[in-house]
Amino acid sequence: MQSTRNVQPPVFNPITGAIRALAMDAVQQANSGHPGAPMGMAEIAEVLWRHHLRHNPANPKWADRDRFVLSNGHGSMLIYALLHLTGYDLPIEELKRFRQLHSKTPGHPEYGYAPGIETTTGPLGQGITNAVGMALAEKILAAEFNRPGHVVVDHNTYVFLGDGCLMEGISHEACSLAGTWGLGKLVAFYDDNNISIDGHVQGWFTDDTPKRFEAYGWQVIRDVQGHDPVEIEAAIQQAKANTAQPTLICCKTIIGAGAPNKQDSHDVHGAPLGAAEIEAARAHIGWTHPPFHIPAEVYAAWDARTKGASLEAQWNAAFAAYRAAHPELAAEFERRMAGELPADWDAHVAAVLAKVVDKAETIATRKASQNSIEAYAPKLPELLGGSADLAGSNLTLWSGARGVSKTSGGNYVYYGVREFGMAAIANGVSLHGGLIPYTATFLMFSEYARNALRMAALMKVRQIFVFTHDSIGLGEDGPTHQPVEQTATLRLIPNMDVWRPCDTTESAVAWANAIERKDGPTSMCFSRQNLPFQARTSAQIAAIRKGGYVLSEAEGGKPQAVILATGSEVALAMAAQKTLAEQGVAVRVVSMPSTNVFDRQDAAWKASVLPAGLPRVAVEAGTTDGWYKYVGLEGRVIGIDRFGESAPAGELFKYFGITADAVVQAVKSVL
Amino acid sequence: MQSTRNVQPPVFNPITGAIRALAMDAVQQANSGHPGAPMGMAEIAEVLWRHHLRHNPANPKWADRDRFVLSNGHGSMLIYALLHLTGYDLPIEELKRFRQLHSKTPGHPEYGYAPGIETTTGPLGQGITNAVGMALAEKILAAEFNRPGHVVVDHNTYVFLGDGCLMEGISHEACSLAGTWGLGKLVAFYDDNNISIDGHVQGWFTDDTPKRFEAYGWQVIRDVQGHDPVEIEAAIQQAKANTAQPTLICCKTIIGAGAPNKQDSHDVHGAPLGAAEIEAARAHIGWTHPPFHIPAEVYAAWDARTKGASLEAQWNAAFAAYRAAHPELAAEFERRMAGELPADWDAHVAAVLAKVVDKAETIATRKASQNSIEAYAPKLPELLGGSADLAGSNLTLWSGARGVSKTSGGNYVYYGVREFGMAAIANGVSLHGGLIPYTATFLMFSEYARNALRMAALMKVRQIFVFTHDSIGLGEDGPTHQPVEQTATLRLIPNMDVWRPCDTTESAVAWANAIERKDGPTSMCFSRQNLPFQARTSAQIAAIRKGGYVLSEAEGGKPQAVILATGSEVALAMAAQKTLAEQGVAVRVVSMPSTNVFDRQDAAWKASVLPAGLPRVAVEAGTTDGWYKYVGLEGRVIGIDRFGESAPAGELFKYFGITADAVVQAVKSVL
Repeated sequence: MQSTRNVQPPVFNPITGAIRALAMDAVQQANSGHPGAPMGMAEIAEVLWRHHLRHNPANPKWADRDRFVLSNGHGSMLIYALLHLTGYDLPIEELKRFRQLHSKTPGHPEYGYAPGIETTTGPLGQGITNAVGMALAEKILAAEFNRPGHVVVDHNTYVFLGDGCLMEGISHEACSLAGTWGLGKLVAFYDDNNISIDGHVQGWFTDDTPKRFEAYGWQVIRDVQGHDPVEIEAAIQQAKANTAQPTLICCKTIIGAGAPNKQDSHDVHGAPLGAAEIEAARAHIGWTHPPFHIPAEVYAAWDARTKGASLEAQWNAAFAAYRAAHPELAAEFERRMAGELPADWDAHVAAVLAKVVDKAETIATRKASQNSIEAYAPKLPELLGGSADLAGSNLTLWSGARGVSKTSGGNYVYYGVREFGMAAIANGVSLHGGLIPYTATFLMFSEYARNALRMAALMKVRQIFVFTHDSIGLGEDGPTHQPVEQTATLRLIPNMDVWRPCDTTESAVAWANAIERKDGPTSMCFSRQNLPFQARTSAQIAAIRKGGYVLSEAEGGKPQAVILATGSEVALAMAAQKTLAEQGVAVRVVSMPSTNVFDRQDAAWKASVLPAGLPRVAVEAGTTDGWYKYVGLEGRVIGIDRFGESAPAGELFKYFGITADAVVQAVKSVL
Repeated sequence: MQSTRNVQPPVFNPITGAIRALAMDAVQQANSGHPGAPMGMAEIAEVLWRHHLRHNPANPKWADRDRFVLSNGHGSMLIYALLHLTGYDLPIEELKRFRQLHSKTPGHPEYGYAPGIETTTGPLGQGITNAVGMALAEKILAAEFNRPGHVVVDHNTYVFLGDGCLMEGISHEACSLAGTWGLGKLVAFYDDNNISIDGHVQGWFTDDTPKRFEAYGWQVIRDVQGHDPVEIEAAIQQAKANTAQPTLICCKTIIGAGAPNKQDSHDVHGAPLGAAEIEAARAHIGWTHPPFHIPAEVYAAWDARTKGASLEAQWNAAFAAYRAAHPELAAEFERRMAGELPADWDAHVAAVLAKVVDKAETIATRKASQNSIEAYAPKLPELLGGSADLAGSNLTLWSGARGVSKTSGGNYVYYGVREFGMAAIANGVSLHGGLIPYTATFLMFSEYARNALRMAALMKVRQIFVFTHDSIGLGEDGPTHQPVEQTATLRLIPNMDVWRPCDTTESAVAWANAIERKDGPTSMCFSRQNLPFQARTSAQIAAIRKGGYVLSEAEGGKPQAVILATGSEVALAMAAQKTLAEQGVAVRVVSMPSTNVFDRQDAAWKASVLPAGLPRVAVEAGTTDGWYKYVGLEGRVIGIDRFGESAPAGELFKYFGITADAVVQAVKSVL
């Protein structure tokens, strides 16, 4: 928040009136929603969208469009109004069904619902962070694809954000990086309205925000009158003129401007205005039309279709020239923006796998992960690696890695100690297109990024999370760093695929799967410690992709019990199988690197792996609860339901009872 | 990081030599650990601990001691060395067992292991945030208990932190609030060594940190030579002199200072120096003693026991005078610092419960939660409420709530939109003692705070998390705000008690339990929507505290099946029971407000609630996986394993199949 509140009210007109009317009428009709932000940002939106935003409503996927992110996503009626008015395929009927089941206008902007929504926003701070990712992607792709005389990647990323986004810690992580990277095409508009849900923000938000952003290396344009189109226009010009720094435009606004009795208070933030206040607002802003009626001349003033088609046509012509000059680059750009893998990808994976199997290495799966990156990355220039200051521990660098910097593109990002920011930036990168981000930290610190992982799953973006040091096997760093419940909780995120490979082969398959998966993110949990290579038939190797499969059948093919295991515990299961065989007990070992993927298989596959009636024991060095789904009330789970300890890893496995002997005893107890 | 690196190296002496030697020798012996920070901060530690820190090694729980937090917790050997050298009960044998199982010297400082460890640190950014909470607690208690002529609460909170802490988003949240609250007794030392794990930080950390902290309203002391005791001393004097603002002392240091070949590089950050470099370092710093040998005169120079005893004796005398003048306040202070509840607490709870049962209200459980606060808080001045900018939605305010501000104490904190900061600040408040914090946000945004919840559970602190809007019952705000997997994932945190009450009675019991629980935190998940009151016998009311109990037995006492439910789905279970009874099927309804608490009951209780052999159906508007532990492979779970949608709540329950009819069908399918 800023200290002075000398805010000039809007001069109302039908252009901005359309936004205000749609916002208050849709919220009223839904009897739910947030009219304050749309009404308070109407002038900013008008100047940006009518005079600067380069987009084509007829093609929301035009590769070189400007990106627009409403980080204060609760103000969703603002973007719905803008998309409707400028000519996107979002008819007025959808606005009438604001916040209703299966409408394109849910309570918060949801990626994939309405055309033109670039990212799902609502969880505060993540929108601006996604936008940093989009601007980063633009910078990297521009460096990679543009050629002298052929600029095919050149667009801005615009963000609206409010006090809430600025209070959230993730805004610090993202905006610090944006400054470090010099993302000059990122322009953020701060809706400085002095109000958050609990009221006037002075009691809990006294930052000197302009000074804070200057400390990050941003260009800050202070004290812009947020209802004055002339000041807004000048600020945008200044922002665009500076291509070396991201810009924060601090706009003093009145929340709910236009609602004469409720504006400038938190009453207008998150609830319908009510019929009386809406009537008063109509009079106050001079809007005489019934709800959801926009006069033709107002539509005409907003319509961006002709201009948008022209902009895209110009770009298409430029791209055609680029294609003529650089046919391979042009084809590669199109492949990448379409999210398609190279034509010979499957053959490449097969060759990589064959080599991995041939080498039969006993190494840590984090090392196996690095080997996978090393093997796949040369085929995939779209891979954008990174780690939250743990490159050497996560093993995410590879021989071709080139760090992104202020002055250059690259294919590897040093995110610093910023897990949440990293994950949400990578979401933005993925949403932008042209790049497939993989990010990394210790599995424990997936918790810092938790909601960004969920957002990746919700938005169905392709992002690859590398989480190493996946159990008490981490050893001496102790309970703050030793995952116990983390793998289990990641598995519970809808649409998140979680892999916990047991060796080099499963690691290579998990990586291939993660790269190929187009409709959601993948989390991979890798060990710090060495894990023995497991021999497999080619049918077994193929079966890894089913998430769970018989790694080792009981001698004679007639198991008396099944042991399920993942990751580092697969070796224990194999040892237990051997011991039990020596004692005359025949057991099957099922490797279950991905419960999520296994759960998607058909009933026949599941029954073939886990036949009904056979007693089952599961072993995993983590929380046990999730395994009862597979072993039932009569089965046993060997795991850890308490916090870890600081000690060498070998001692910890014994101390916590994660041993082959414990598995043997458990199997005997269920027979 | 700061732009200039004009760092003067230390003038070595035996006093700081002891720290450096212990750090490098213990890390070497463990063959694991972080020598860099202890060696780089030796001079800062020496000046602070020998000349300023008011503590008594013989009584680490002295109420008015200064608090010291090592936010860069990986440098744990620094604090172990300091505790050992100043005379805490941490013998040299424990330092020799650094990072070994059951030592008091785990890899990161763990609360409850070594005396004098005020909080567990390691997850970066949370230590400084805990420290903000400690300083906040001091401010609040000072305002509440000090009287003219009687200052019994008056201590500083000192923090060491590094680049990692400053990059983490939570540092923004915490330090912004510390500035807003004017926590003048908080003094943070920034170990500006220019190195993080990935190397020199210029590539990923270019903030102007002093400017950033000035923007938060801190006093910033720039460009302190971090190896120069004179400059450090002057900075501390300046920090202590300013009681209106927290102070950041920016100390330019050399990481690993003293290791002649490895210092000032990330090689020294997180790995043993190796025998050769240790030998070189011994020569370089003039330390001629064998590992773990400290000369008597060095011990004598560090020993803080005499001074500490004297300081505490002075305070005890002052407190005796306070007791004479204000006996009731003194008794209350002692009760509060001991964490004891008022003597008549049980009777009060019983009376509250009786009233709740008598009223038999059908209201949202978030409202029932507020009623609980209103009923319990007048008895408990130690309750420190708060919400992350959702007071009116979480319903955490009560009639006696008084907001904390820069100029006053209080019993309610407006945290702003800062969930992670809030939770970790509250951890610090709880660790300080004298206050029991409760904090609140939407259940979804527990994810933003996730690792602080885990830290509360790991440290066994009493903290109460109020999470409202606990399911798709949230309605129109849509999938970004609708919890699906959140209750389930909270249950997986070891030592976290999770409650999801079904009505006013269970809500009041959950609150009482949370307040009474002394060895860990409690998360309570409350509904947005109204839930019907359930009638109970007094035995049933008592049984709520067992986490799961028979809410409604089958007619005739001979159930054919059991329905388990929590929260808003208990009413569905009751309706299903009725429908099934009409169809001649007798079922028992088990209300399971806390699976964690139920799991701790003895086998007899569990069997009495869930008799073996009875088919079971569980219903909860969330992830199903965790329920198979109770219903087995033959049971059924009615739940939601996908993301929510934006629509009115009633429609959503139907759309996702969370209905009494679905429960009826499921019961029939398992008979």
